[in-house]
Amino acid sequence: MAVNYVLPSRESLLPVPGIRLGYAEAYVRKPNRKDMLIAVLDEGSLAAGVFTQNRFCAAPVTLCRDHLARTPSQRAIIVNTGCANAGTGERGLVDAGATCDAVATAIGCEPQQVLPFSTGVIMEHLPMDKILAGIPMCVASLTADGWYDAAHAIMTTDTVPKAFSKQITLYGKTVTITGISKGAGMIQPNMATMLGFIATDACVSAETLQDLVRMAANVSFNSITVDGDTSTNDSFVLIATNKADHPVIYADGTVEFTALHDGINEVAIVLAQAIVRDGEGATKFITINVSGGKSNAECMKVAKAIGHSPLVKTAFFASDPNLGRILAAVGYAGIDDLDQNKITLHLGDVLVAEHGGRAASYREADGSRVMKEAEIAVNVDLGRGTEKVTLWTCDFSYDYVKINADYRS
Amino acid sequence: MAVNYVLPSRESLLPVPGIRLGYAEAYVRKPNRKDMLIAVLDEGSLAAGVFTQNRFCAAPVTLCRDHLARTPSQRAIIVNTGCANAGTGERGLVDAGATCDAVATAIGCEPQQVLPFSTGVIMEHLPMDKILAGIPMCVASLTADGWYDAAHAIMTTDTVPKAFSKQITLYGKTVTITGISKGAGMIQPNMATMLGFIATDACVSAETLQDLVRMAANVSFNSITVDGDTSTNDSFVLIATNKADHPVIYADGTVEFTALHDGINEVAIVLAQAIVRDGEGATKFITINVSGGKSNAECMKVAKAIGHSPLVKTAFFASDPNLGRILAAVGYAGIDDLDQNKITLHLGDVLVAEHGGRAASYREADGSRVMKEAEIAVNVDLGRGTEKVTLWTCDFSYDYVKINADYRS
Repeated sequence: MAVNYVLPSRESLLPVPGIRLGYAEAYVRKPNRKDMLIAVLDEGSLAAGVFTQNRFCAAPVTLCRDHLARTPSQRAIIVNTGCANAGTGERGLVDAGATCDAVATAIGCEPQQVLPFSTGVIMEHLPMDKILAGIPMCVASLTADGWYDAAHAIMTTDTVPKAFSKQITLYGKTVTITGISKGAGMIQPNMATMLGFIATDACVSAETLQDLVRMAANVSFNSITVDGDTSTNDSFVLIATNKADHPVIYADGTVEFTALHDGINEVAIVLAQAIVRDGEGATKFITINVSGGKSNAECMKVAKAIGHSPLVKTAFFASDPNLGRILAAVGYAGIDDLDQNKITLHLGDVLVAEHGGRAASYREADGSRVMKEAEIAVNVDLGRGTEKVTLWTCDFSYDYVKINADYRS
Repeated sequence: MAVNYVLPSRESLLPVPGIRLGYAEAYVRKPNRKDMLIAVLDEGSLAAGVFTQNRFCAAPVTLCRDHLARTPSQRAIIVNTGCANAGTGERGLVDAGATCDAVATAIGCEPQQVLPFSTGVIMEHLPMDKILAGIPMCVASLTADGWYDAAHAIMTTDTVPKAFSKQITLYGKTVTITGISKGAGMIQPNMATMLGFIATDACVSAETLQDLVRMAANVSFNSITVDGDTSTNDSFVLIATNKADHPVIYADGTVEFTALHDGINEVAIVLAQAIVRDGEGATKFITINVSGGKSNAECMKVAKAIGHSPLVKTAFFASDPNLGRILAAVGYAGIDDLDQNKITLHLGDVLVAEHGGRAASYREADGSRVMKEAEIAVNVDLGRGTEKVTLWTCDFSYDYVKINADYRS
């Protein structure tokens, strides 16, 4: 179902020294599915994260922020699907705290060294009997080879597991970067109903790790949109186990920092694009490039207006080069002094619009040809500056409605 | 198909002294449908309008703004469906101008006293041969009783004609207010792919007419959303023919001004709600009341976040009380210092959430009961001020996708 997505094989996912993973079928909501994940980090590991901007953030997000503020020296992440523990008030915080306590006891660390994550239905309380019963099951299955099962254990409406590994060389040492993600709907920039976890055995300072997670989020998870909804639970966490035995890396522009930065970004982009390729009901993968802006922010405004428009997205679904809908979205993006006569619009390599209207050279057959492809690029030049952004999104199909109308049934 | 919509009868639509209407089947895009409308206003009539905020505004919108800036003393409106004359560059302006010239010649007035409107597919040029052939047909069918046919002549994907009349008394005289509207998709606050025309024979100053059209737009056409898209062509025009032979009304708080203001608002609200009831694929009519805000603007931010969320709208379609999706939308509406613990959410009369989570008294059976109704009220109290707004919207169904994927076919 996912658009042009290469399924990860078990063998393609490389263990990261210093981290072991285990899962459980805990029946949080439904039977016979992996619905809990634990990742246990060796002592000396560091973690950093970015989280949802939603003011109605979930209880586990509040605890993650609090624990990371206390110490970057984290020892475990614990994830459940089926229930988001969001909109659950004071009891939600108590439940998330009890989950961390149980993990801390099970693996031998402080509760503040456990980062909790939940995803699923909102406004229902965690079934704590099942969660607490699931934790020992997770611990019993811990293995360094656990990434493939881990990718499955965090899926909700995802149709494919999302995971990717790559290796880089730092100071002559081979370093691994492996990550998993989940999310298929309610995805938009500034974090969505998505979870992303990337781990590396590289040796990094805590401050640099925080820089790296922010930079990676900006070019990956904050540059995708499925339906414009921002969830209560979105989290992206980067872990460095510091096992690689090379000099500590700082954000200083050295070749080693650049190699690590680029490697993490590449993994994050693959994981973020996978969420769009598996977007609920998606049949097309759309890359929206907006250039020629006065600022990054105004370029993203335009990209989001296009990427969130139900009219544009249904036209992609229909393979209909109804390109006026794209121009209309550019027009209402909220740039007050936009001059429509300076905008050019390309669909793939086909010039569609310029000088405030349809390009003289444009033929609908050319537009139709591009629209029929599974991967489509929309290139807008605002003609007023040098900034640019890229946003990835998908089309809007019957199945999006079906999936979201049926989700809780 | 339209939700709880009372079809107007021919008899219910009252003529407005000083205005005659005519239509044509001009085959602008499709055969055998009324697709052009003319309204001819007696000398002494005044017009005022509000128009799309889209920077890619259509050529007729540009001309309307220009003509109204030159003189409020307008003599005709001319409308075509099938082609929006938007994204058509310089030639679009020439075509719209030629249309006004032809109308001016046909009825005997200045071209700047003609207001042109187009709705339909974007980025295609007006078929000027058909438009110019349609104008004499429109003029030939002019009649004061033409409102019912006029409502049909401006429909695009609308499934029902939208029209409403009422009468009020000003200084002992019976005054009529009659209006028509069109629009079914691409509707959101700040004008959408909608056209609205309201006429009255009341005697009003030009400045007051401009005040009245702005005030009516705010509580009607700017308070509805179907899919969040803002079109290139949205226009709402208010006409006063000044035939009622009573003292001229100014915006001065007199009982007469209030009566006229309330009457116009009532007609505008019926016409705006009709657009939502006939929203593309709509099966539910949703009223979103946001109160307790510090400002009108922040209340509208929250209302729009709820009203634009595909997740919320598909849950309404499914009659699924997945109310966490509403809380999530409140949370990402963009109010930075929102305290989730002060928010209360009612679905109809059912208290759903308070103190940052599900209300202790809430039972899903109660939520389900409300969600099954065709008209649903969502009441959010932000608990931080005294401002409030109301936004009307509809659900998001399979048919929305079908209609918009097939629109040009």
